[in-house]
Amino acid sequence: MKYLLVAAAAASLVLPAYADEPAPIPSPGEIAAAAPAGDWIAIAPSDMLVMDLVPDVKGKPRRVVIQLMPSPFSQGWIGNIRKLAAAHWWDGTSVNRVQDNYVAQWGDATEKKALPEGLAVVPESAYVVTDSDSYETVVNGNVVTRLSKSAADRLLARREKSSRTSIFDAGFNPGTDAYAPAVAFESGWPIGLDDRKVLEPRWPLHCYGAVGVGRNMSPDTGSGAELYTVIGHAPRHLDRNIAVVGRVISGIEHLSSLPRGTGALGFYESEGERVQISSIRLASDLPVADQPKFEYLSTESDSFARYADARANRRDPFFIKPAGGADICNIPVPIRPVAAK
Amino acid sequence: MKYLLVAAAAASLVLPAYADEPAPIPSPGEIAAAAPAGDWIAIAPSDMLVMDLVPDVKGKPRRVVIQLMPSPFSQGWIGNIRKLAAAHWWDGTSVNRVQDNYVAQWGDATEKKALPEGLAVVPESAYVVTDSDSYETVVNGNVVTRLSKSAADRLLARREKSSRTSIFDAGFNPGTDAYAPAVAFESGWPIGLDDRKVLEPRWPLHCYGAVGVGRNMSPDTGSGAELYTVIGHAPRHLDRNIAVVGRVISGIEHLSSLPRGTGALGFYESEGERVQISSIRLASDLPVADQPKFEYLSTESDSFARYADARANRRDPFFIKPAGGADICNIPVPIRPVAAK
Repeated sequence: MKYLLVAAAAASLVLPAYADEPAPIPSPGEIAAAAPAGDWIAIAPSDMLVMDLVPDVKGKPRRVVIQLMPSPFSQGWIGNIRKLAAAHWWDGTSVNRVQDNYVAQWGDATEKKALPEGLAVVPESAYVVTDSDSYETVVNGNVVTRLSKSAADRLLARREKSSRTSIFDAGFNPGTDAYAPAVAFESGWPIGLDDRKVLEPRWPLHCYGAVGVGRNMSPDTGSGAELYTVIGHAPRHLDRNIAVVGRVISGIEHLSSLPRGTGALGFYESEGERVQISSIRLASDLPVADQPKFEYLSTESDSFARYADARANRRDPFFIKPAGGADICNIPVPIRPVAAK
Repeated sequence: MKYLLVAAAAASLVLPAYADEPAPIPSPGEIAAAAPAGDWIAIAPSDMLVMDLVPDVKGKPRRVVIQLMPSPFSQGWIGNIRKLAAAHWWDGTSVNRVQDNYVAQWGDATEKKALPEGLAVVPESAYVVTDSDSYETVVNGNVVTRLSKSAADRLLARREKSSRTSIFDAGFNPGTDAYAPAVAFESGWPIGLDDRKVLEPRWPLHCYGAVGVGRNMSPDTGSGAELYTVIGHAPRHLDRNIAVVGRVISGIEHLSSLPRGTGALGFYESEGERVQISSIRLASDLPVADQPKFEYLSTESDSFARYADARANRRDPFFIKPAGGADICNIPVPIRPVAAK
């Protein structure tokens, strides 16, 4: 890491390649950056939640953007969250808890603010998905992906023509997830599975930046009014115990760098420590000019397969010993702002 | 998590047990807290590094305590670190980099400060340990511990008398580490192993709070003057690529809650953003009254076995679905301040 202090020195490592010298091996980030435009998928404004905290002490704005999970995951809670945002329910509430290496949590500190009418009560069974549909399974080694029929056909056609290593072939030790019998990427999200062949049930994972729904004791599952995000090592023991509804895709530093609460479990002990939330809105409810624009690298793309393989087998110049595997939470799906045109 | 807002409500869950009702199942933290005094091992002042940052804007002191790794791990770099501390080399240097979900890094931002004489140049081969000694191996299921001969004899004698579940028997799915063929605890530290039977080579892991040695391009391995600590999801791909020399055992929030650097890789872009280090000393070089006192839960104790099993199989009242396994970085070894007598 030390060498990274001097950008000029790092740049000088990319020497002109001699004829008999292999080309420099790209890092995972370079692979993602070089992916063709068609491998990137725009995130719909209706699937993003925009949380504006009050400006910091220097007057700088603090915007956190959350991508909501796609169907079929956690849609009951996400429906509630859309209603809470539409009702401006979070405006004037606050970040109330920041526990080191765990979570930052926000909502109504008084726990007395009336909720809007019509919120669903979601059962614990919704922590996992057991739908049955027309999707097809691609299994190879330890990694499973779940694709639409046409995407699976395209993928399989390509693979017959090529021996290219992809996420479906390599980059992971067999059976290496400590919390789920199998793991996969689905529609851009890391998921766990009980059975790599059947693919049901399956569920979202508590990786860094995941947004979940605070709750009381079981069988309550929370309304979605009390939310948290992971700011430390993935607390995967929460999988299937709390609903995951999204992930922070921009501005997590406005939560992860807040002072840690000194109360039990990192709760702030006084009103003055809490960080006020100016507003939370669906991006689609903001004026167009104020809507954030993000895109993610399709987890069904060749680029993602190469990226994930490179995360598991670092071959860029700094590394001397590739791991031969990676924790799925250490393969964050590349997400980037869409450049203004 | 929501229920934890109200401490009184949580306390009320511990109801008087009726005769036919099972006793409440303790959480991992409660198991550790209830461990007998003999299961706790004091950390020697000569094995702790005390880093005092300048006070924060409110004048509050910011002390970070780092436990250095025991022999046989990383002793070449640790020898250098002891010399650097003795020379007061870090005094007046600074925290120069804070990258979200990755590391906080400190040292000489100018990279021009002369190092003390006599620092060792440590070879890459020292990233792993291949000693051969009188230790004995206890293997059971997927978990390996490495004990002195007498401790192994005591453990095996106990196990023959009991069917108690322990870390050696349960709590982990087989073969579940994505980065190492096997993982274990040795002398209070999580380690990786190439072969669970042979136990050599083995190496320290980049879990949350791990302290490592910044370096330039291989085969340079760094002197130990440039250090970082992990403030996000465990970057285990760094294992065997960078030396781990210790872990933050107190005050990591003074690093993890710093503003993220806005330069490449989280480096601060201006002098004013850097956080000055007042001093770094071995605790044993401080006046006795100023020496921090900490102890860790012996990873060879029954209490630790129960604690680790509970981390992998949460049965305390909040949980509805125990994972049946845990990432070794999600089983932090319990460490606590020693109460003044």
